[in-house]
Amino acid sequence: MMRPDTTSRMDRVQTPIIPAIGALIDATPGTISLGQGVVHFAPPPGVARAIEAFWRDPTNHQYGPIEGSEALRACIRAKLTEENGQQVTESQIIVTAGSNMAFLNTVLAITGPGDEIVVPAPYYFNQEMAIRSVDCTPVIVPVGEDHSPDASSIADAITSRTRAVVTVSPNNPTGAVYSEALLRDINRICADRGIYHISDEAYEYFVYGSARHFSPGSIEGSGGHTISLYSLSKAYGFASWRIGYMVFPQHLLGALKKVQDTNVICPAVISQFAALGAMQTGRIYCEPFVSELETVRRSVLEVLETVGDRVRVVRPRGAFYVLVQAPDCRLDDLTLARRLIQEYQVATVPGRAFGSTDSCCLRVSYGALQAETVIEGIGRLAEGLTGLT
Amino acid sequence: MMRPDTTSRMDRVQTPIIPAIGALIDATPGTISLGQGVVHFAPPPGVARAIEAFWRDPTNHQYGPIEGSEALRACIRAKLTEENGQQVTESQIIVTAGSNMAFLNTVLAITGPGDEIVVPAPYYFNQEMAIRSVDCTPVIVPVGEDHSPDASSIADAITSRTRAVVTVSPNNPTGAVYSEALLRDINRICADRGIYHISDEAYEYFVYGSARHFSPGSIEGSGGHTISLYSLSKAYGFASWRIGYMVFPQHLLGALKKVQDTNVICPAVISQFAALGAMQTGRIYCEPFVSELETVRRSVLEVLETVGDRVRVVRPRGAFYVLVQAPDCRLDDLTLARRLIQEYQVATVPGRAFGSTDSCCLRVSYGALQAETVIEGIGRLAEGLTGLT
Repeated sequence: MMRPDTTSRMDRVQTPIIPAIGALIDATPGTISLGQGVVHFAPPPGVARAIEAFWRDPTNHQYGPIEGSEALRACIRAKLTEENGQQVTESQIIVTAGSNMAFLNTVLAITGPGDEIVVPAPYYFNQEMAIRSVDCTPVIVPVGEDHSPDASSIADAITSRTRAVVTVSPNNPTGAVYSEALLRDINRICADRGIYHISDEAYEYFVYGSARHFSPGSIEGSGGHTISLYSLSKAYGFASWRIGYMVFPQHLLGALKKVQDTNVICPAVISQFAALGAMQTGRIYCEPFVSELETVRRSVLEVLETVGDRVRVVRPRGAFYVLVQAPDCRLDDLTLARRLIQEYQVATVPGRAFGSTDSCCLRVSYGALQAETVIEGIGRLAEGLTGLT
Repeated sequence: MMRPDTTSRMDRVQTPIIPAIGALIDATPGTISLGQGVVHFAPPPGVARAIEAFWRDPTNHQYGPIEGSEALRACIRAKLTEENGQQVTESQIIVTAGSNMAFLNTVLAITGPGDEIVVPAPYYFNQEMAIRSVDCTPVIVPVGEDHSPDASSIADAITSRTRAVVTVSPNNPTGAVYSEALLRDINRICADRGIYHISDEAYEYFVYGSARHFSPGSIEGSGGHTISLYSLSKAYGFASWRIGYMVFPQHLLGALKKVQDTNVICPAVISQFAALGAMQTGRIYCEPFVSELETVRRSVLEVLETVGDRVRVVRPRGAFYVLVQAPDCRLDDLTLARRLIQEYQVATVPGRAFGSTDSCCLRVSYGALQAETVIEGIGRLAEGLTGLT
């Protein structure tokens, strides 16, 4: 009997970092986790009422449409018009089981093996993983000092094999909010070169101070090459319900329906009912939480300043992340993250997961916990960074 | 401005058939659908109670473990031991958002572009679509007169590029139940050749008369190369909840977790709570429905006999499908299916979706409707086949 040959395309894909950090946290009771990117609040009360309707019709236990329910897509369409300035038809919207799946479905639908996708780094790890999972190459463009990519560097990275440029704004893991001008430049470059612009807007509501979120899908003439990804996970405390959605050029509908049917068939229907309830409550639901996060963010930055020159932090303007760089640290990032858990009971995510390998850095997530707990955790982090770097 | 190059791997993938048939049904009010493969019954009452526990802990709105909850995997493990004779550890079980996703995750995890997977035909369309979606080649082995594949034909189809053989028993779309001897032969061939055996057992509870379901994962020494796929969709009226699970050799855990994290991150947590409630009710829940289906199946076969020599039917012994062949039909299968809807108000699925292209055939699904409605639909089908073939 032979053991099957176990080489596969997955050999090129990094091991998920969150469970590895989770195991360290579990082994060190009392650890405060500034690790996984989740929010601390639950979905709006409207969700429970929306689910009552799910139970009233037994056919709701059968498969729903591949692209998501008509009612939910109509609600999404109205939201896109009102909030994002995107004028689309309902046949340009597909509801997915999270926007992470929307990204995987997208790369399956627009590429072939050996194609390239341009990704500013640090990147969101699951996107780099998705690109490699489908036998494509992520072409990495390092961001500048302000954590925004340079449009001309992106243009220079495009080859005849490039199928798309990815932007994530507000950004995971840096918290950067790209300017409208930059997003317009990138979108225009994609148009000129005949490639797609994949715009991940999962954190659209999470912007602070004078920062404004801009949707490239609102640009005139962008409809033929722009793929916009949205998520309910952050805005509505909806991570475990697995609902996101994507907006795309009409010509991709056929390919995207094939992918979704081959993958999840349809997102869980009870989650779609819940999503409709959440979106009917609307953006107003998360505004108090975002205000609170803005305060937490200021405290986080103040505490990190106490560490002095040992760390470098670019003031984030969105999402709920701060990337903490420790350029002179003698430890590698994974060791630093491990020792911060074991010796200081505070968890972060090492920068290597985001493609930051040139200097030691950590992603700090401040959305998952109540304000006091975050501040306590950041205090431990400051102490740990002082002690270990 | 250039339009993006829209060629992609998805060009080789067939368009989902169910929505196409669904559109024809919608356009012909009063049509009885013997199309999509769903059951007519809802989940067991225990599901509602299980969901109450979901709402009691707000952290249930955050991401769960990639591989599924510990409680659900423990319950699955006990079921595998008791019902399937599979002795596994919980780290060999991953809960997926449906067993369709489990198949896609599997082919992503065990292949590279250009690899081959051996698939008996007629096949379940989403599996052929998944194989093509990941740039692999489905190597088709036609089944024999009794709708079972021949083990030696499968052995002959294996090349140095082959990574797996797929079996679906009880079968979609034929209703065949493969014998234990055949499944042992195929599993042994896979072991000898160092490839995986992917065993899809979504319809395990749906066997009739003297037919017995057999799980290749129960074979001694099969644990290193057997991947078993199970679904709650049929057994518990659970299609829209999107919960299935897979059992696999320990060495695949790393690759499969990468894929799942890149795809859905975790199955919807509310669905996992519901699944635990359903599985705690257990197999006994669907037994009365299976008995009823056995009666319906007999009536379906009796009515089809009235059509005489125009159609050929192999008596199915499992699932809730009958493949109706109309070898002398002047119409192609898609035209026949369309005209049966438009002229006789009864919907089936054309055989081409399952890779049956040599002669005209249709898949009839009798699980989705109450007995009387199915019988009425089959009456229309018999009339239509008499009139059109």
